[in-house]
This record gives sequence, structure tokens and C-alpha cells, in this order.
Amino acid sequence: RPVNRVDWDLGEVERGGYDHFMLKEIMEQPSTLRETMRGRLLEDEGSVKLGGLTGMDDELRQAKRVVILGCGTSWHSGLIGEYLLEDIARIPTEVEYASEFRYRRAVVEPETLAIAISQSGETADTLWAMREAKQQGATTLGVVNAVGGTIPRETDAGIYLHAGPEIGVASTKAFTSQVVVLTMMTIHLGRLRGTLSQSRGREIVRALRQLPEQVAEILKMDNEIRALAEQYKDSKNFLYLGRGYNFPAALEGALKLKEISYIHAEGYPAAEMKHGPIALIDENMPVVVIAPRDGVYDKVRSNIDEVKARGGCIIAVVSEDDEELAGVVEHVIRIPRTHDALTPILASIPLQLLAYHIAVLRGANVDQPRNLAKSVTVE
Amino acid sequence: RPVNRVDWDLGEVERGGYDHFMLKEIMEQPSTLRETMRGRLLEDEGSVKLGGLTGMDDELRQAKRVVILGCGTSWHSGLIGEYLLEDIARIPTEVEYASEFRYRRAVVEPETLAIAISQSGETADTLWAMREAKQQGATTLGVVNAVGGTIPRETDAGIYLHAGPEIGVASTKAFTSQVVVLTMMTIHLGRLRGTLSQSRGREIVRALRQLPEQVAEILKMDNEIRALAEQYKDSKNFLYLGRGYNFPAALEGALKLKEISYIHAEGYPAAEMKHGPIALIDENMPVVVIAPRDGVYDKVRSNIDEVKARGGCIIAVVSEDDEELAGVVEHVIRIPRTHDALTPILASIPLQLLAYHIAVLRGANVDQPRNLAKSVTVE
Repeated sequence: RPVNRVDWDLGEVERGGYDHFMLKEIMEQPSTLRETMRGRLLEDEGSVKLGGLTGMDDELRQAKRVVILGCGTSWHSGLIGEYLLEDIARIPTEVEYASEFRYRRAVVEPETLAIAISQSGETADTLWAMREAKQQGATTLGVVNAVGGTIPRETDAGIYLHAGPEIGVASTKAFTSQVVVLTMMTIHLGRLRGTLSQSRGREIVRALRQLPEQVAEILKMDNEIRALAEQYKDSKNFLYLGRGYNFPAALEGALKLKEISYIHAEGYPAAEMKHGPIALIDENMPVVVIAPRDGVYDKVRSNIDEVKARGGCIIAVVSEDDEELAGVVEHVIRIPRTHDALTPILASIPLQLLAYHIAVLRGANVDQPRNLAKSVTVE
Repeated sequence: RPVNRVDWDLGEVERGGYDHFMLKEIMEQPSTLRETMRGRLLEDEGSVKLGGLTGMDDELRQAKRVVILGCGTSWHSGLIGEYLLEDIARIPTEVEYASEFRYRRAVVEPETLAIAISQSGETADTLWAMREAKQQGATTLGVVNAVGGTIPRETDAGIYLHAGPEIGVASTKAFTSQVVVLTMMTIHLGRLRGTLSQSRGREIVRALRQLPEQVAEILKMDNEIRALAEQYKDSKNFLYLGRGYNFPAALEGALKLKEISYIHAEGYPAAEMKHGPIALIDENMPVVVIAPRDGVYDKVRSNIDEVKARGGCIIAVVSEDDEELAGVVEHVIRIPRTHDALTPILASIPLQLLAYHIAVLRGANVDQPRNLAKSVTVE
């Protein structure tokens, strides 16, 4: 009797028809962001409900300081967390490279909250930095994707991303979900401590709720971004610039390109350029500038003029209704309007696609970049 | 009657026979460091005498937190200041890009010391960040080289570098003097607050006193480093790695090369490499690793092995008596032993020379790099 052989490759099935896990994971962000927020937003109250932080109200109310610990992409989401927590919840916050924190005799004061961010929950440096903070008396929280790992087990409390398994070595959906979790944590702390009003809380919750659809909107530009990638795939170097909430998004955009395409891309706070990096700029150096209509738009605008004056070629991520920049820069990528604090999430999506397409066009193995492992469980 | 014409170019005279101000300023560091410390070290007491901080004892004793503000090279010396202040004086410290701090609604708690670092005393972002901190109630201190500028005038107190005019756009002697001033400030705070014992204070003061001669020792390697520059002058990219006190030295080494040679050089904390940048490494990417025999030597040693395993080509800055690394890496640059906290000063000297020679060999105008101004008095 003839056997019906199924010629599907198992990886192919799991990739859901996409060429790479990374592309699948980029594309599924509307649904992963929805999962991250499911059951957690309280729009009327301008607040959130985070089951993982149950019973922690006293510690969260009394905390005098937050230290965020992470590596790589998680360190970038931590930087956004610092901006969120200081701007919105008004808690003094510092972000540390986990690998530096654990060896440098850092001062951990009483009533410090240490937040360990790790996709896998097993990142060795982050785990040990968290243990160090704990030993010095900090209350520890985890922001982790994979369920049941060492960091969730050893922290006092925490919030899972619920973004589903991330297989691509270059983190994409975990990053955007980390930022959403940090935003929800900020709302929770701000409401608990009385530093965030109900009406301002409601604005942020509403903006969060709109995110999945806005991300889906951006993902429709895939072909357009692929065409841009064609133009820039042979560039040897890139600069990524942003300010405020989008300075960390610039670092993350550069890291994506670096990881999977092996192009030397570097992120910078835009205003630092004139203290050195602007010397690099000539017509061969594409510069990606994140310039949505947020509180620092005018400042970024003048940094764009500085780059143009030196002959640099600019790809700008701008708000959908921006009418100024299209005539000034070489390319604009338009993203929907949102709350200032959420712009780095939307700005990251086209930069993930740009890195992905450049890497594919260069023939790189985007799911398994050379020299890199998915979870760094060694020091 | 014949006129005796003097055919000397005035710039030539001021350059003291050197081809460039930058080289003159690198070479004069033994004497500028001596000037920075003159009359300020109290070896027997294990302490320092800082006239600029007279009358500030109460504020310095009560300070709960330090925020360091700077841009470019001054931001790098500020990062070393954070390690110093936390490690030795045990004061929680944060370093901020001045351009980010001034626009991001950072939290400045009562009893915060804000330290503004600026060679010129006129850096616009640093000045405005300092004003912002002051308005929020911080006590402000300046760490400035040029006498009589706006930052010294507007801060509550401060310490001058006394390093003499710095003309080269790429900062060299101001950087090493900034780190010495931050070290002296740390000793002062540690002694005042009882977190630094007399005997440990004495160790650091003694190490400071030896610095000028040790720097002179390193400067004798000029020819050797010029030969190294010959070998690497055509490289398109560089990575600079360090950990602990030498992570900021890696950033600064990379910035020097970037500013004057226009080679894309990037600094990283060595352990972060495996979270992305290690993907860049192949035989065409020289990697400068700062690896003196300090508290994190073994950790840096294993990061070196990771780079070697990926075929990277390493230039290592090591302690004079290091016997392990010469057989492992392509080139070693040996520096004298000193206190862990002062290793970034010694490690920076050969990296200044390396950047200088590479830039000269590439025909760049090292004293006036393209696109850059010496003092950035605009935003």
C-alpha cells in the first residue's frame, strides 16, 4: 500500500511559511503585543493589572530607586525603562550592563528595586547581577519571556512577556514586548505612588491598546523597506541616531543590523554626534535618524541639518503627518502617531525589517548569525 | 641696513617643534598631570587638599547621590568617575549625556551633587544640563580646564584641571587630567564621609604621585606604536574592548580614532560582545583590548579567547609583567602597574598615540578634523 509521504520540513511548518524565524517573529508582533497586554490594561482606571506583582504593593510604594540590569537588546529596553520610570513614575532609575554591575562594587541602597530583563530568563550575567543586587538587599523583579527559568524562580516577583518562543537569534518581538511590559510597570508604579494621574494613565493605556494595529500598519511597508534595503545593502557602515525615548531605539536598530548583516552600525544619542562621530560622516555613510513628532523633534531636526551640512545621506523615521522632513532627507519611513513614550516601539519595527532585508540580500544566515548564540548562558 | 627676518611660523613655535598640537599635548602629559596634582596631594594623611571645594564640606558630607554631566570625552571621564565614586567613596552615582539629561525630565533628588565636566567650561549642552540640575536643587561642581568660563562662574564650586590650553580638537591631556581630578575628588569625598580609610587613601595618593613618570615611560614607546599604526592604518573598522575601569577607556580610545582618522571605531564593555558585536569579528577587524592585571583580568582574558576563537586580530594593552597574553594575541603594548582605578589613565596614552599615528599616516588633518569644532558652544 502506498505511503503518503509528507514532504514538509518541520522547520518550514514552524516558520509559518516565512523564509526565516526572524521574519516570522517580526511579522507576528501585532499578535505578540496583544498577548503581552491581554487582561492587563484597565482603561477606565488609567491603570494596569499585573498578576505577577500581586502582594508587592508595599515594596513598590516604598522603593527609593530602581536599578535595571540587562545585556544586549534587554539593556536597550532597560534604557527605555529608565526614561519611562523617571519621566512618568518619577522614580530615580539607573540602567546597568549586567556584566559590569556584577564586578564593579556598585552601591545598592536600601529600598532599591532591581529589575532583571532577559528573554530566556537564563542570561548568565543578568542572573548573577540580579543575585548580587538581591544579596545587597534589593527587591528583585524579573521581566522574562520563557516561562519557568532561573530568573523567574529566583526573583521576588516579575512579569512574563507572553510573546511566545523566540527562535531567531536577533531579538525582535521580545524587545517590543519588553518595552510594553516596562510601560505597564511604569503605569502601575506611577498610579500606586500617586505620581501618575488617572487621566494621564488613561492616555498611555489607550495608546498601548492601539499599538498592535499600528504595528500591523507599519508591517505593510515591508516591500517599500525591502527596496530601501536594496539601495543600501552594500554600505560598509551605518550610524543610527535618536534622542530621548528614541536614543535607545537607535542603539537597538544599529545592533540588529550589526548582528545579522555584519555591517558595522553604531547608535548614538543624536546630540553627541558633534562631539566626535560626525567626523565619520561623508556621502558613503548612511545615517538613520529616528525623528517622530515628539517632545525633542525640533532638536533632532537640527541634528539632521548638521548631518546634511556634511553631505550625509539620511533615512529618517518620521510621523505619518510630517511635512517638513521629506524635502530634506533622502528617504522617509512614516509611522503612526502615538504617545511619546511608545514611539520607540513603532520606530523599531521598520528598523527590524531594514536589518532583516539587508542581511538576506547580503546572503547572511539571519536566524543563525556567525559567532552568536540565542541565550548567553555563559559569562 | 639688512633686516633679520625670523622665518619661524608662530604656530610652529607654539607647537614646540612637534608636527601637531595633538602630539605636543599627548607628549606633555607628564607635566600636565603634575600641574593637575601640584599642591593637592597629602600623602601622609592619605588625602587631598582641593582649594576649589573650600567651604563645601557640609554639602559633600550630606550628598546622597552624584550625577555627572558631560559630552564626548568628558562623558567618558565621567563614566570613570562613576566607577571611582561608587567603588571608593561609596556614593550612588549616575553619569548622563548632558544633551539627554536636559530634555528628559530626569529625577533630581534633594541632596544631589551635580558634577559638570567640560574642558572649555562653555559646552552648551553641559552648561544647560548643569543649570537644569541646579534649578532642581542640586549642589553643582565644575571640572573645567579653561579658567574663567561660564561653567566655573555658575557652579557652586569646582576644580580646575590646570592642564594648560588644549588646542588639538581631539582631547588628550584634558581627558587624563579630568580623570585625575575625579580621583582626587573621590579621595576627598571618601575621607570626608568616612568611606575611605587613611591607609587606602594613601595607596591611591601614592599611585597618583607615580603617574607622571609612568606616563613618561609609556611615551617612550612612540616609535613602537608608530610601527603598529603602519600595520593597521588601512583597516576600515576597529573594536575597542575593556571591562570595569577600562570600559570607559575603551570608549575613549575608539573615539580618538574615529575623530581624527575617520575610521569607524567602536568601544564596548568586553562582556557585551557576545550579545551582538562579536558577529562583526573576522580577520579584517582589529580588536584593541585593554587588559591590565586588575580585578577583572581573568574575565577580560576569557573575552580575549572568544575573539581569538572567531579569528579576530588583537592588540592588547597589558601590564608590563604580563606573561600570559604575549603568546595569545597579535600585539601587546605594555604599561606599568598602578592602582586599578588609575589603569585607564595609563591605558589611554598608547591609544592616543595609536590614533594619532594612524591619522597622520592616512594624511588626515589631526588638529582640525573635518566637521568638528574644539568647543561645542551650540546645542
